[in-house]
Amino acid sequence: MAEAYSRGLKQIAKIDPESGAAFVEDLKKISPDFAEFFVGFAFGKIHSRTVLDPKCKELIAVANLVAISDGKEHLRLRIEAAFRAGCTKDEVIEVIIQSVVHIGFTKALIALHLVKEVSEENLIARRDSDTGLAIA
Amino acid sequence: MAEAYSRGLKQIAKIDPESGAAFVEDLKKISPDFAEFFVGFAFGKIHSRTVLDPKCKELIAVANLVAISDGKEHLRLRIEAAFRAGCTKDEVIEVIIQSVVHIGFTKALIALHLVKEVSEENLIARRDSDTGLAIA
Amino acid sequence: MAEAYSRGLKQIAKIDPESGAAFVEDLKKISPDFAEFFVGFAFGKIHSRTVLDPKCKELIAVANLVAISDGKEHLRLRIEAAFRAGCTKDEVIEVIIQSVVHIGFTKALIALHLVKEVSEENLIARRDSDTGLAIA
Amino acid sequence: MAEAYSRGLKQIAKIDPESGAAFVEDLKKISPDFAEFFVGFAFGKIHSRTVLDPKCKELIAVANLVAISDGKEHLRLRIEAAFRAGCTKDEVIEVIIQSVVHIGFTKALIALHLVKEVSEENLIARRDSDTGLAIA
Amino acid sequence: MAEAYSRGLKQIAKIDPESGAAFVEDLKKISPDFAEFFVGFAFGKIHSRTVLDPKCKELIAVANLVAISDGKEHLRLRIEAAFRAGCTKDEVIEVIIQSVVHIGFTKALIALHLVKEVSEENLIARRDSDTGLAIA
Amino acid sequence: MAEAYSRGLKQIAKIDPESGAAFVEDLKKISPDFAEFFVGFAFGKIHSRTVLDPKCKELIAVANLVAISDGKEHLRLRIEAAFRAGCTKDEVIEVIIQSVVHIGFTKALIALHLVKEVSEENLIARRDSDTGLAIA
Repeated sequence: MAEAYSRGLKQIAKIDPESGAAFVEDLKKISPDFAEFFVGFAFGKIHSRTVLDPKCKELIAVANLVAISDGKEHLRLRIEAAFRAGCTKDEVIEVIIQSVVHIGFTKALIALHLVKEVSEENLIARRDSDTGLAIA
Repeated sequence: MAEAYSRGLKQIAKIDPESGAAFVEDLKKISPDFAEFFVGFAFGKIHSRTVLDPKCKELIAVANLVAISDGKEHLRLRIEAAFRAGCTKDEVIEVIIQSVVHIGFTKALIALHLVKEVSEENLIARRDSDTGLAIA
Repeated sequence: MAEAYSRGLKQIAKIDPESGAAFVEDLKKISPDFAEFFVGFAFGKIHSRTVLDPKCKELIAVANLVAISDGKEHLRLRIEAAFRAGCTKDEVIEVIIQSVVHIGFTKALIALHLVKEVSEENLIARRDSDTGLAIA
Repeated sequence: MAEAYSRGLKQIAKIDPESGAAFVEDLKKISPDFAEFFVGFAFGKIHSRTVLDPKCKELIAVANLVAISDGKEHLRLRIEAAFRAGCTKDEVIEVIIQSVVHIGFTKALIALHLVKEVSEENLIARRDSDTGLAIA
Repeated sequence: MAEAYSRGLKQIAKIDPESGAAFVEDLKKISPDFAEFFVGFAFGKIHSRTVLDPKCKELIAVANLVAISDGKEHLRLRIEAAFRAGCTKDEVIEVIIQSVVHIGFTKALIALHLVKEVSEENLIARRDSDTGLAIA
Repeated sequence: MAEAYSRGLKQIAKIDPESGAAFVEDLKKISPDFAEFFVGFAFGKIHSRTVLDPKCKELIAVANLVAISDGKEHLRLRIEAAFRAGCTKDEVIEVIIQSVVHIGFTKALIALHLVKEVSEENLIARRDSDTGLAIA
């Protein structure tokens, strides 16, 4: 599983370049086995698959997490990851709008406010660094 | 809402050409108001939106319904709808595989067996009619 | 808990006069302790309370069970119980319509079809016995 | 949908007179379409219905949200709305007590503590303004 | 992952000696990748772990599945697996009784009836074959 | 139910010696009836049962609460209770690892971080008091 593990680390770095590596280091201290499954399986085996294009893959994750709405931190992270994969703010919001039919407004509103938080943080970051991240 | 309602009827016919119209007629007998909301809002206002391409929109619906896993009939219908929108069997299964990370194997297995059922029914239908529906 | 138990049996008979007693007898064979908790606590202590009027109490139960949507049989039983408590079909359906905002259309549709099934069974029963059960 | 939208705004003002309007303005900045659906459909079409009396309608919402227990903020808002609609503290708590049978003590406890928080805030407000809000 | 896969096959045979192998063969026809993850990861990496004793491990699985209550077939299979691991009927029912506090009576009742079904099937099997399976 | 109530108080003191009694006092102020059901039924009738050994009973509670993942405070309390009942950190983490198959990584990660928080608090407490609580 060594190969899957290093592939997983790369995927995590892609999704969360700022704090992904530190998150894994932290996880290893709590449970090295859980960390191995998380990195090697969830990211090395599953998230690294290329059947769906990267943007769609991230929107799928948002559609899953909006529905279970468990842990705002994870949903927020995947909303950020969707932006990093090149999804526009309108596309991420559209996943939430489509979800209303299946999960109702309550869970959808929680997700929508996370999109707002992520966008505002990025706007602030953009003003600071003028890097022009692709979030409308 | 008359315009939204007729737009909704068209969306339903696209998703479920065989029994969508009968489903709506049945719904109207149970509750005309609910039928109006279902057709006019869920399909006329939400599903008819064109921000995401039709294939991605159906995969999003599968990703939502796999996660809530409530009512196999609805999930099955949306798996069929994904096929009708041009998604391949591999793409629909990929949504389920990606979902494993967020919802576990239990819900994913239920969805996977629905893909099998839908595919087999389509294979039988194909043999009968030789219409060549685009399911690999 | 003897008093609570006999009070619970009466509540169950009110909710499900046809098969409630047999259900409890069946439960006692599987687990006498579970049966005691179910009858003595769930019905003898909780359902027998009179803070809310009986109709509202049944609508609350429907609103809970629509949201968890777990076990169509329980939801169906409580829809029947709502009718027995004097709720109209429109009121039961209204609970489902109000729920759409919080739980989406998917779970709501499952509940709505149960209302239809219960109503049709009652219509058939009515034609047979001409008893005129109060379901519009 | 203009009529439904203005009807929805009025419903929201009834439920949350202090911050409802600002919430909608905020929502419009995140997604004008979502805001339109939330105001025009969820409140203009659904919550504005008059089949159930206003108190029962709010208790139904609490019964839904206790069961999904997603987003304490929404549940808290609807507990406040129930008080505003004239429900007593005992009635709101009774919905939570009845829910224990269907959803267990864990989710019920979360809701119960929200009732406490809302009541205490109102008590403080009452002492400040001597307005005598109808919360026992 | 070849080693994990064959270890997973053995775990599945232990849990479901009658139809586990056929289940995997069926799964491989639907999606070879999913089958590999299910056998190699879920059983080869996770279920094969020996930190908890086999009986406790099965009771944990029942406690998980009672709570999500998704797919009676999976819950039933794990109840059977608990019996096969040497758990008594009283122990399996006790997991369900303890769960009532966290998940309520509705989901618990569904699980309890599955215990009854599994026990009755085993009783019938026992009468037929006089094998004396260890279910009280 | 007086006997069950005092038995329940003892169970709560065992699970949460520091703040259990204050929690109950607080609960009584919000709703004396709810407090009676919580103490007398959930703890006096259910948690006081001795069919499963105390360690297994606590792991079952963790397996339930990981799956519903509702209210981090309750899950954290039961993780602490598992430690108090003599479960090792590895055993508690193992419940979470086994759960990944049924509930996915998202809910499991939330639980895992709670184990970390509880362990760190205990480590700090240990350094302060040198009491040597049995958490590895």
